[in-house]
Amino acid sequence: MSRHLQKDIAALKEKLIEMSGLIEDRVYQATMSIIKRDDALAQAVINGDSEIDRMEVAIDEQCLKLLALYQPVAVDLRFIVAVMKINNDLERVGDLAVNIAERSAFLTTQEKIEFPFDLEEMAIMAEGMLTRSIDALINQDVREAFRIRSEDDQVDAYNREMYSRIKDDLLKQPENINSLLHAISIGRHLERIADHATNIAEEVIYLVEARIVRHKPEVFEG
Amino acid sequence: MSRHLQKDIAALKEKLIEMSGLIEDRVYQATMSIIKRDDALAQAVINGDSEIDRMEVAIDEQCLKLLALYQPVAVDLRFIVAVMKINNDLERVGDLAVNIAERSAFLTTQEKIEFPFDLEEMAIMAEGMLTRSIDALINQDVREAFRIRSEDDQVDAYNREMYSRIKDDLLKQPENINSLLHAISIGRHLERIADHATNIAEEVIYLVEARIVRHKPEVFEG
Repeated sequence: MSRHLQKDIAALKEKLIEMSGLIEDRVYQATMSIIKRDDALAQAVINGDSEIDRMEVAIDEQCLKLLALYQPVAVDLRFIVAVMKINNDLERVGDLAVNIAERSAFLTTQEKIEFPFDLEEMAIMAEGMLTRSIDALINQDVREAFRIRSEDDQVDAYNREMYSRIKDDLLKQPENINSLLHAISIGRHLERIADHATNIAEEVIYLVEARIVRHKPEVFEG
Repeated sequence: MSRHLQKDIAALKEKLIEMSGLIEDRVYQATMSIIKRDDALAQAVINGDSEIDRMEVAIDEQCLKLLALYQPVAVDLRFIVAVMKINNDLERVGDLAVNIAERSAFLTTQEKIEFPFDLEEMAIMAEGMLTRSIDALINQDVREAFRIRSEDDQVDAYNREMYSRIKDDLLKQPENINSLLHAISIGRHLERIADHATNIAEEVIYLVEARIVRHKPEVFEG
C-alpha cells in the first residue's frame, strides 16, 4: 500500500509543478500584454482560466482520493493537506493573472500611458517567488522557503513606490484617470501574487518543520 | 471511535462558528470606525488580528489531528477538509478587516471626505453573506448556499457603482486624492469579503452535493 501511496504522491507533485509552471506563464503573459499593448495575449490569458480551474479541481479531487484510499498519517498526511492548500493559492494566482489581463485589455482601448515603474521587473519577481516556492515544496527546502518569505517585503516596497508615483501622475494627468487607476490595481494584483507565494513558502516551512510560521515575525531559525 | 469523532466534529463546528462570529464583528467594527472616524475602534480591530490568527491555527491543527487520529472517510473526511478550507477563507477575511481598519486609521488623520455611497449597507451585506455561509455549512443548507452565491453579484455591482462615484470625486476634489484612493480600496476589500463568503458557500454545496460548483455558472439545480 505504502509504495502505491508514494507513487501517487509523486504523481501529485508532478501535477502541481505542471500547474505552477502554467500559472507562472500566465502571470508573465498578462504582464507582457500590458507592456506590448497586446489585446490578443490578454484575451488568451483570460480564456485560459478554465484550464487552470480544471487543474485545480483535479488536484483537489486527487488529494481527497488519496486521503480516503490510503488514510495516510504523519508526513504523508501533512504533505497531502499542504498540497490542497497550495493548490488553492495557485488557483487564486491564476485568477489574479486573469484580473491583470482584464485590466490590460481595457488599457489597450485607451490612450497609452507611461507606467512610472518597471512592471516587467515586478512581475518577474512575483512569479519567480511563486516558482521557487513550489520548488521549495518539492525539495523540502526550508532555507529557500524562508528566503522567499523575506522577499515579500521587497514586492510590497515596489508596490508602495509604484502607488506613490501613479498618484503623482493622477494629479498631473487627470485625463488618464481610468488608465492610472487600472495601473494601481495591476500593482496590487502583483503584490497579492507575491503574498500567495509567501503563503506557499510558509506551508513548506510548516510541512518540513512541523511548526506554524504564518502570523509569526520573519526570523530564520533554520 | 465513531462517537468520539462525531463529538470532536461537533466541537470543531463550535469553534468555526465562534471564529466566524468574531470576524463578522471585526468587519463591522472596521467599517463603523470609518463612518464614526473612530481611531480607537480601528486600532482595536488591528490589534485583535493575532487572536484570529491563533484561532485559525488552532482549528487547522484540530483538523489535522482528527484526520490523523480517526482516519475518517466519506462524509466526515470531506467535512473536515471543507473546514480547513473555510478556516483559511475566514482568516483572510480577518486580514481584510485589518486592511480596512488600517485605511480607516489613515482617514481619521485627514480632512473628512463624504463617502459617495452607503458604506455601512455594503459592509452589512458582505458580513451577512459570511455569517450565513457558515450557517449554511452547519445546517448543510444547499439552497441557502446557492442564494449566497447569487448575492455576490450584488456586492460586485455595489463596488462598481462606488468606484465610479469616487472616480468622479477624484476629478472634482484632487486635494482629497489620498483619502479617495483609500476609499476605493475599502470598497474593494468589502467586495473581496463577499468573494470569500461565496467561496465558503461553494464549499458547502460541494460538501453536501459532492460536486464542484466553483468555476461553474450560477445556476441553482438543487
